[in-house]
Amino acid sequence: MNLSEITHPNQLHGLSIHELQEIARQIREKHLETVAATGGHLGPGLGVVELTIALYQTLDLDRDKVIWDVGHQAYPHKMITGRYNTFHTLRQKDGVAGYLKRCESKFDHFGAGHASTSISAALGMAIARDQRGEDFKVAAIIGDGALTGGMALEAINHAGHLPHTKLLVVLNDNEMSISPNVGAIPRYLNKMRLSPPVQFLKDNLREQFKHIPFVGETFTPEMERLKEGMKRLAVPKVGAVIEELGFTYLGPVDGHNLEELIETFKQAHSIHGPVMVHVCTTKGKGYAIAEKDQVGYHAQSPFNLATGKAIPSSKPKPPGYSKVFAHTLVKLAENNPKILGITAAMATGTGLDKLQAKLPKQYIDVGIAEQHAVTLAAGLACEGMRPIVAIYSTFLQRAYDQIVHDVCIQNLPVFFCLDRAGIVGADGPTHQGMYDIAYLRCLPNMVIMAPKDEAELQQMLVTGINHTDGPIAMRYPRGSGYGVPLMEEGWEALPIGKGEILRNGDDLLLLGYGSMVYSAMQVAEILSEHGIESTVINARFVKPLDTELILPLAQRIGKVATLEEGCVMGGFGSAVAEALMDNNVLVPLKRFGIPDKLVDHAKPDESKVDLGLTTSQISEQIRDAFFSKQPSTVS
Amino acid sequence: MNLSEITHPNQLHGLSIHELQEIARQIREKHLETVAATGGHLGPGLGVVELTIALYQTLDLDRDKVIWDVGHQAYPHKMITGRYNTFHTLRQKDGVAGYLKRCESKFDHFGAGHASTSISAALGMAIARDQRGEDFKVAAIIGDGALTGGMALEAINHAGHLPHTKLLVVLNDNEMSISPNVGAIPRYLNKMRLSPPVQFLKDNLREQFKHIPFVGETFTPEMERLKEGMKRLAVPKVGAVIEELGFTYLGPVDGHNLEELIETFKQAHSIHGPVMVHVCTTKGKGYAIAEKDQVGYHAQSPFNLATGKAIPSSKPKPPGYSKVFAHTLVKLAENNPKILGITAAMATGTGLDKLQAKLPKQYIDVGIAEQHAVTLAAGLACEGMRPIVAIYSTFLQRAYDQIVHDVCIQNLPVFFCLDRAGIVGADGPTHQGMYDIAYLRCLPNMVIMAPKDEAELQQMLVTGINHTDGPIAMRYPRGSGYGVPLMEEGWEALPIGKGEILRNGDDLLLLGYGSMVYSAMQVAEILSEHGIESTVINARFVKPLDTELILPLAQRIGKVATLEEGCVMGGFGSAVAEALMDNNVLVPLKRFGIPDKLVDHAKPDESKVDLGLTTSQISEQIRDAFFSKQPSTVS
Repeated sequence: MNLSEITHPNQLHGLSIHELQEIARQIREKHLETVAATGGHLGPGLGVVELTIALYQTLDLDRDKVIWDVGHQAYPHKMITGRYNTFHTLRQKDGVAGYLKRCESKFDHFGAGHASTSISAALGMAIARDQRGEDFKVAAIIGDGALTGGMALEAINHAGHLPHTKLLVVLNDNEMSISPNVGAIPRYLNKMRLSPPVQFLKDNLREQFKHIPFVGETFTPEMERLKEGMKRLAVPKVGAVIEELGFTYLGPVDGHNLEELIETFKQAHSIHGPVMVHVCTTKGKGYAIAEKDQVGYHAQSPFNLATGKAIPSSKPKPPGYSKVFAHTLVKLAENNPKILGITAAMATGTGLDKLQAKLPKQYIDVGIAEQHAVTLAAGLACEGMRPIVAIYSTFLQRAYDQIVHDVCIQNLPVFFCLDRAGIVGADGPTHQGMYDIAYLRCLPNMVIMAPKDEAELQQMLVTGINHTDGPIAMRYPRGSGYGVPLMEEGWEALPIGKGEILRNGDDLLLLGYGSMVYSAMQVAEILSEHGIESTVINARFVKPLDTELILPLAQRIGKVATLEEGCVMGGFGSAVAEALMDNNVLVPLKRFGIPDKLVDHAKPDESKVDLGLTTSQISEQIRDAFFSKQPSTVS
Repeated sequence: MNLSEITHPNQLHGLSIHELQEIARQIREKHLETVAATGGHLGPGLGVVELTIALYQTLDLDRDKVIWDVGHQAYPHKMITGRYNTFHTLRQKDGVAGYLKRCESKFDHFGAGHASTSISAALGMAIARDQRGEDFKVAAIIGDGALTGGMALEAINHAGHLPHTKLLVVLNDNEMSISPNVGAIPRYLNKMRLSPPVQFLKDNLREQFKHIPFVGETFTPEMERLKEGMKRLAVPKVGAVIEELGFTYLGPVDGHNLEELIETFKQAHSIHGPVMVHVCTTKGKGYAIAEKDQVGYHAQSPFNLATGKAIPSSKPKPPGYSKVFAHTLVKLAENNPKILGITAAMATGTGLDKLQAKLPKQYIDVGIAEQHAVTLAAGLACEGMRPIVAIYSTFLQRAYDQIVHDVCIQNLPVFFCLDRAGIVGADGPTHQGMYDIAYLRCLPNMVIMAPKDEAELQQMLVTGINHTDGPIAMRYPRGSGYGVPLMEEGWEALPIGKGEILRNGDDLLLLGYGSMVYSAMQVAEILSEHGIESTVINARFVKPLDTELILPLAQRIGKVATLEEGCVMGGFGSAVAEALMDNNVLVPLKRFGIPDKLVDHAKPDESKVDLGLTTSQISEQIRDAFFSKQPSTVS
């Protein structure tokens, strides 16, 4: 059977090991070919080809549920659940999503994009099943990295407490998050990997007993206890912790051996209550280049399959925000030992790997543990350090209460650097950095800023580090800057809560925030061609908002538009609306931002078109709203 | 020495065990006396009297740091850190806070109110210490209940990975959260409690060896391994999991034996790297009534010390919102087996204990694990159940990403019932339910409503359960309802996104949300006495906002005021401002709510005075703003 003929995972049922191996080969081929062409996640999916096939071979996907964690390793799953023929559209607008989506396939039983959610969701389904007296199987797959996320541990604590709730947790242990794992839990798992397989030892236990004089023959109660102790000795730590937490532990299993996997999954299905199957996999398996550089090939932009080298984009791009952030942070940290950069398992994404390389003592990776990262930073701030939490906007959601309870209420100087704020592109709805302005703005003591370009990011980085009065956050977008000149030293802090005027005009007040300031300038250009002259302000701070600057201009000019790359509900434009209303400046306001809906995966520029956020669309809407397309009649 | 003479914890240093016991006695006396008079947390503090004294006896609080988790057990700490003489003002306005506050005392090294934060904060301080080359001690105290919170487990994962970072974690194991604990971790700890002390077993190990023929004498390598195995047998599980996670484990220790505690803490201080001391305590220790009813006496309103009975308030109060919620939920759940009530260790606070008692199969307590609670609910919703997450507004902050990522993005019908929304009174800033409107409003697919009184809560409960299109949230305040007539059955769902007109008038449009609707009516009464006639709307929904109702009235009446018990930044008033601006209804708007600052502990009515939110203050401000106190000139 060919992979292309598989439209339903149950078609795997009748196949021989040899045939399944052939399917595996074809999945890898398609996986590599597609990601090389479209870009996407490479290592995670290649690592779970056999795991996916073996698991599905033992399940009835018309009834049973499979919950993948994170979802970026689900490409093999997608290929055998009816999306082989569209797989070449991966991560393209209207194409196959890079993560799991319930609306994309009935086999995507639970959406994912962030880590550590799968056990909770699976347990919910298992409880629902039992409540209704049904008996389908529920399997959650979780990575060893995701297991350091507190939520997964909360779920294990709960599941381990329910001995009658049948639940399979497949631990996909590849010894990595995006970067190598951090923490005692991964270290413990690693110890298990290095232990010989349980079964082998169990078989040999009887033999070993025989060699100890008398022990093999007499069985007093002491002997029974001794035997128990010997078991613990022979199987020293393998799974002990997991079994203490109420799970039956099976493994470790070679995650690329189909026979062994199928055997173990079958055994797991026969066990009542919660079971964990520990599967050891290799990220990038089958593609030597990716196996060798697991961090580099976690995800890839389009690349040459033969060499593994990224296909250079047609024209060279200016350095990205993350890169400028990291470069500048290293410079600043070299001269300030109080600076500590903190990441939650996103060293490469945030650029903190540069800090790690240069100043390892001023770098902390806490693992996939955003909550802990923030309160750890609060503790550091109490002791006079300058903790910088470098985190994606979407992942900071994971630590919201810690921002409120541990940072803002105590008014501690923690500096949040929010990367990937705004529209993120191909990663889609789970990763859009849409909400941070709204969810941070309502918190007392918080200062929130966004640079208009990468040079201003440098200034704001200094501003944030110098701001020791309380918490401060800076948001900046994914991707390249504008190629503006950068400084290598001598940056000066910006005044807190002050914006700047970029252009003067009497017909319209355009307020841009962060990544939309250049758009505001372009909109002003376009409108100028229609005879509409704009004053353009780079707001810089949404909190405190520069009402001293904005309100008199709004009053005088009489028409205001706000531009932001964040949700319009509660965002920057909302802050401006509040300020106008609170100060009785009753002039028309048009707010441009992300409307109250999800933003699907697509190129950021494509998303902007859909959302009406291109400069020409904005200009058009402003003319419609304020100038009835006949500017001459207005001024 | 008398407790009253202790103004610095280091004064404990020279005291004998006998003297320390006397201090303990006096702490208990003062603790009981105070809480009986003022109300507050009873069981938690009584349980840690000896733990606090013993720990502080071994520390130098001029240098060393102690981080308490949750903080409601820190009354003994407060009494020996300079607050004995003001302790009678506990939880009163401008008095001693019920939780820890850095601004209250230099000995409150980290504030707390929510659970599971202490290890993260302590680790931050320990890392800062090492970074600066200092050598003070850092101790985190955490309850066994709080250890089920994922954040604490994230911190343990990190700390256990840092063998050179000296950190003491004191596990205060009283086998309880507010209610008995849930989960595999507490069960594991309980097993440890039941095991005989480690030292005892170690001492006896040699003896035991002798009784096994030959084993005691021959020492081949096999024998060495066997011995190791026997150790594991003799000390079967005590601390094994914790040691696997990189901690040195000491305990279990009798938490009411000062000598044993001091001895163990001294030993712990001599160990490098992370250490966990497992202390077994009894909640309510020393007050028999509280020891017997640990759930009931976790916290208390003023009570009679001799009988333990609550002192009845001067006039009987109408049933509280939580009670009406629970009562109605039980009624609805009886007829709908799909309804499942979920709590994160707050069964009594949310009223879900009533559901547990009546319909245990429709009740889930996940432990202190808000993140898991929400995604578990998402999983249940996928399978057609009607999960109701009953949670305090402030604690839902802990699960923000789960609301975004697992519920809203997937548009799953999870029903969030947010108790204690608004001003909560004596619990203070960590517990104010201020932010939920703002942090939920920005999320796509979310419906948000708030009832004006307890009868409308009943209707909204039905509304939420009937709303199967996606997520929905209802917020309601702490405390009593208005005593309005309640129905026992036959409730009808309200139309989503529709408000109601409660009063008509042409001078002012008053928009009330939730707990401020009655205030709006009262304000209308007061204004009417000044000749100002108001239209009053009960908005019911902040999302979707009833713009069809509101906008024409706003346009016609020309003056609008919004009233809410939540932060004004991004809240209900902000939603109204957005709607007015977006629709070019440029009329003056005055927004009343909680300004952008923290709200300290006080009676809710006292807080309202401070915040300018009493009906007379609001009326005054409206007259000032809109009517220049001369209404006759306006209409």
